[in-house]
Amino acid sequence: MRIGVDIMGGDFAPEAVALGAILAHAELPSDVTLVLIGDSNKAKAVMQENNFNPENVEFVHTEEVIGMGEHPAKAFSQKPKASISLGFHMLAKKQLDGFTSAGNTGAMLVGAMFSVKAIPGIIRPCITAPIPKPNGKHTILLDVGLNPDSKPDVLYQYGVIGSLFAESVYGIKNPKVGLLNIGSEAEKGNLAAKATHEAMLGTKDFNFIGNVEGSDIFDEKVDVIVCDGFVGNVVLKQAEAFYKVIKKQGIKDEFFDRFNFEHQGGTPVLGVNGNVVIGHGISNDVAIKNMILHTKEVIDAKLPDRLKKYFN
Amino acid sequence: MRIGVDIMGGDFAPEAVALGAILAHAELPSDVTLVLIGDSNKAKAVMQENNFNPENVEFVHTEEVIGMGEHPAKAFSQKPKASISLGFHMLAKKQLDGFTSAGNTGAMLVGAMFSVKAIPGIIRPCITAPIPKPNGKHTILLDVGLNPDSKPDVLYQYGVIGSLFAESVYGIKNPKVGLLNIGSEAEKGNLAAKATHEAMLGTKDFNFIGNVEGSDIFDEKVDVIVCDGFVGNVVLKQAEAFYKVIKKQGIKDEFFDRFNFEHQGGTPVLGVNGNVVIGHGISNDVAIKNMILHTKEVIDAKLPDRLKKYFN
Repeated sequence: MRIGVDIMGGDFAPEAVALGAILAHAELPSDVTLVLIGDSNKAKAVMQENNFNPENVEFVHTEEVIGMGEHPAKAFSQKPKASISLGFHMLAKKQLDGFTSAGNTGAMLVGAMFSVKAIPGIIRPCITAPIPKPNGKHTILLDVGLNPDSKPDVLYQYGVIGSLFAESVYGIKNPKVGLLNIGSEAEKGNLAAKATHEAMLGTKDFNFIGNVEGSDIFDEKVDVIVCDGFVGNVVLKQAEAFYKVIKKQGIKDEFFDRFNFEHQGGTPVLGVNGNVVIGHGISNDVAIKNMILHTKEVIDAKLPDRLKKYFN
Repeated sequence: MRIGVDIMGGDFAPEAVALGAILAHAELPSDVTLVLIGDSNKAKAVMQENNFNPENVEFVHTEEVIGMGEHPAKAFSQKPKASISLGFHMLAKKQLDGFTSAGNTGAMLVGAMFSVKAIPGIIRPCITAPIPKPNGKHTILLDVGLNPDSKPDVLYQYGVIGSLFAESVYGIKNPKVGLLNIGSEAEKGNLAAKATHEAMLGTKDFNFIGNVEGSDIFDEKVDVIVCDGFVGNVVLKQAEAFYKVIKKQGIKDEFFDRFNFEHQGGTPVLGVNGNVVIGHGISNDVAIKNMILHTKEVIDAKLPDRLKKYFN
C-alpha cells in the first residue's frame, strides 16, 4: 500500500508533517510505503534532526506550494507542480492508494472532484465526521460542509454512502441511519427534509430509522446522521465550541478528550474514485500521524469499490 | 401588570403550574397579578395543600384543555374554551399584558399567530433562545424552530428583531449581530445565507459583524446569531445533548449548570402583537416559576411597541 502525504500542507508544515510521518511510520505495517510529496530537502532535514532515516519513506520532490489562502480552483489549475496537484495526479494514475494533506481544504476538494472525480451515479460527493459517543463508539455525520444546499436526492444518497462508510470503516453492522430534523414526526422540517423523509421511508438501500434531532447526536439509537452540508458543518463546529469551552473550564474528562481533533486527524472525501483524506489546517505532529493512519483505514475499507458496486 | 398563566399546560400540570405560581408570586412585585387560567378547583387545592392563599392570584375557570398531542390549529379553533384559547382571547382583548404556557407548543404558536397576530411589516414571527456564555452573558439565537425555511428577507428581519430583543430584554447595548454560516467569508454558505449576507452588509438597521460559525456560539464577538429555524433548532437541541451528557458524565460545573432549561423557563414568540412565552413541556415547578418571571421581563421590555415603531 502506498500512501501519499503532502509535506507542505498545514499551518505547521513541513515540520509537523515530517514529524507526523515519523510517528506514523512507527505504527504502520511494513507493507505500507509513505510517499512524501513536497520539499524533500526540508522534510529530510527535519527527519535527520530527529534521528529518522529518510530512506524509510519515498519522496516526490517539488517546491511549488498551494498556500492556505489561495483560491482553490485557480491554484489547482495554475500550479500543476504543487504538492497537492502532484498528489492527485499520482492518485488518479494509481501510483498511490490514497492521498492526504492538511493543506488548503478547497484545493483538496477541487483535486478530489476534478482529478479523481465523482463515482458515476453519485450526484454529490461529501465529507464526513465522527462524533464521539459516551459508549465508546461514534455517530457518523454527513455532509459536514461540502454541499451547503443538498437536495433530497443528494440527501438520500448520503444515506447510502454513510451506511457503507460506517460499516466498512467503523465496523458497524447494518448501521441505523437517521435524518437530522427538527422533530420526530414525518411532516416536520424544512422542504428538503420532508421530501427526503418521504424518499427514505421504507427504503431497502439502508436501515432508515426516521428523523433524529440535535438532541440525539450521542444517542445509541442512531449510527449515521444525514443532513445538508450547512447544518452538518454547524453541528461539527458547535461540537468544537463545546470541546473548547470544556477545556477552558478546566474540566478533565476522558469522553470529551475524544473530541480533540488530533485523535481523528482527518476527514475522507466520500463518493470519489479514490481515497482522499483532508486534515485540519492547525494539525500538529500527532494530528498528522492520525491523519495518515486514518488514510490507511480508509484505503483498507475499499469504499470506492463498494460505492461503485452499489451505484453501477 | 397582569400575567396570564395556563394552569393546564405541561406534562406535570396542574400541580407543577400551581406550585410554580406560588414560587413566582413570592418573587414578583405587588403590582403584578397572576391570572391563572384552567381548572381553578385543582389549582386551588394544590395551593391550599401548600399553605398558599389562592386569593393572592386571580382565576379564570375552565375545564377544557388542549392536550399535548392534539393537532394545534384544529384544537385551537374547535376548543374556544380551552385554557390556551381563553388566554389568547384575553391577551388580544388587552385583559392581560402577557400570556404563558408550558402546554402544546403548536397551539401556543397558532394562538400567537391567529389571535394576537404578527406585527404589520414582520414577515415571519420567530422564537429565540439564549445560549449561556462563559462570561456570564448570553448569545441570543433566532429563529430556533418556527420557520425551518427562512428566506433572506426573513433572515434580515431576524437581525432587527434579535437586536431589539437583546437590547430590551438582555440589556445589551448596540448588540453585535452575526449571521450563522459555514465560513467567515462573504461568499460562503448556502444560497439563503449568501443573499442574506449581501443584504446585511453595511446595514444601519443593526450592528452586523458578518458571518459567524458554529464554533463561535460562546464567543464574545457576537451577541445575536441569526439563522433559519431548522439550523437554530438543531443548534439548540445539540446544546441540550451536550448538557445531558455533561450531567451523565457526572461533571459538576457552574457554567454548564446554566444550560438547565429550568433556569430559563420559556421562550418568547417575537414579532407578534403581544407578549407570549412558551414553556418546556417537561417543566417542573422551578421551570414554571422562571417561565412566569421571564414573561414579566418580556412584558417590561415592551418589545411589541419597539417593533411596531421600527416596522411602521
